[in-house]
Amino acid sequence: MTGEHSSKQYDQELEAIRSKVLLMGGMVETQFEAALECFRVGDSARADRVMADDQAVNQLEVQLDDACSHLIVRRQPTANDLRTVMASIKVITDLERIGDEASKIARTSKSLYERGGSTFAHYDMIKTIAKATCELLHNALDAFARLDGKQALELIAADEGIDHEFRTILRNLITFMMEDPRTISSALDTLWVAKAIERIGDHAKNIAEYVIYVVEGRDIRHSKPLATEQPAP
Amino acid sequence: MTGEHSSKQYDQELEAIRSKVLLMGGMVETQFEAALECFRVGDSARADRVMADDQAVNQLEVQLDDACSHLIVRRQPTANDLRTVMASIKVITDLERIGDEASKIARTSKSLYERGGSTFAHYDMIKTIAKATCELLHNALDAFARLDGKQALELIAADEGIDHEFRTILRNLITFMMEDPRTISSALDTLWVAKAIERIGDHAKNIAEYVIYVVEGRDIRHSKPLATEQPAP
Repeated sequence: MTGEHSSKQYDQELEAIRSKVLLMGGMVETQFEAALECFRVGDSARADRVMADDQAVNQLEVQLDDACSHLIVRRQPTANDLRTVMASIKVITDLERIGDEASKIARTSKSLYERGGSTFAHYDMIKTIAKATCELLHNALDAFARLDGKQALELIAADEGIDHEFRTILRNLITFMMEDPRTISSALDTLWVAKAIERIGDHAKNIAEYVIYVVEGRDIRHSKPLATEQPAP
Repeated sequence: MTGEHSSKQYDQELEAIRSKVLLMGGMVETQFEAALECFRVGDSARADRVMADDQAVNQLEVQLDDACSHLIVRRQPTANDLRTVMASIKVITDLERIGDEASKIARTSKSLYERGGSTFAHYDMIKTIAKATCELLHNALDAFARLDGKQALELIAADEGIDHEFRTILRNLITFMMEDPRTISSALDTLWVAKAIERIGDHAKNIAEYVIYVVEGRDIRHSKPLATEQPAP
C-alpha cells in the first residue's frame, strides 16, 4: 500500500515532529536561562519577556499534540515509530511544564527586585543547582536529538544530585530565616526559585526516560518492584 | 475490514482503557484524602501506606500507556476515538503526578509529627484549599467518566479560587514566621503541603481540559492569544 514516495513523506513527517520538539526544547532552554539571569541581576522588562515567550511555548504544545494525532491517523505508525510518537507526546508535556517553571522564576525574580532585592547573596545560593539543572536539561535534549540511550541512562542519576542540592538550599534558607526574620520574604522567593529549578530537573529526567523508552523499547519509569500487591480501593 | 464482532471487541478495549483510567483516578483520590488525614492527625504508619500505594499508581501508569500504544497499533482509531486515547495518555500523566504530590504530603506530615508537630493549627490553615481541591479532583474525574464537557468547563474556573487561596495561606504563614521564628520549620512544612494541594488542583484542571478536548474536539489549553509573534531563538 505504501509506495516509496509516500514512505519517504512519512519519514519526513516523523522527522518534522522530532525537529519541532527540539525547537520547543531550545525555546524552553532559552527561557530557563533568561529567567535565571533575571534572578541574578533583576531585569523587569526581561522577566516580562520570559513570561510572554511562554505563550509561544504553549501554542507549540497544542500544535505538536495535533501533529502527533494527525500522524497517527494518517500513517498508522507501528513499533519503533509509534514509540517515537508516544514519547514525543510525553516530552511535549514536560517541555511545556519547564516553560511554566521558567515563567515562575521570572515572576518571582520580578517581585523580589520590586521589593528591593534581598539582604543576602540569593543568586549564589542557587548557582550550583542552576548550573547542574541547565546541564541536565541540555543533555537530555541532546540525548533526545541523537536518540542516545546510553547518555540518557547516565542523566537519570544526575537528577539525584539536584534533589540533594535542593535539600541543602532548604536547610541553609531555614537557618537564614531563623537568624533574621526580616529575610523571610526574600528567603521564600529564593526557595520558590530553587523549587522551580528542582522541578525542571525532574522534567529533564522524564525526557531522558522517554529516550530510553524509544531506543530500548522498555519503560524504565518506576522500575522498582511493587511494595504492595494491591492498593486500597 | 472490521466485522461486527471485532468492532464490538474494539469498543470493549477502548472502554477498558477508560475504566482503568478511572480506577487510577479513584486510587489517587483515596491517596490524596489519606495524605490529608495524615497531615491532620499524624499517623506514621498510614503515611507509609500512602507512599507505598504510590508504587501501584506508578505501575498502573506504565500499564495504561502500554495499553494505549497497543490499541493505537492494532485498532488504528480515528477522530473521536483517537481523541479519547490521546486524552487518556495525558490524563494518566496528570494522575501519576497527583499520586506523587499525595506522597509528598504524606512524607511532609510524617516529618512534621516526628519533630513534635506544630505550635499552630496547621491543618486549619489548609482546610479550605484541601476541601476545594478534593472537590475539584472528584468532579474532574466525574466529568471524565461521563464525558461531560459542560461540567468540565465550569471546573476550570474553580482552579482560580484554589490559586487565590494558596496566596492567602502564603501570606498568613509569612506573618506567623515573622512573629515567631520558632515556627519556621513547621510553617514551611505547611507551605509544602499547601503547594502540593495547589498543584493537585492544577492537574485536576488539566483533566477537565482534556475532557473538553474529547467532547468538543477543540483544544482549549492556553486559549489566550499569542503575546509575541515569535519567541527569541
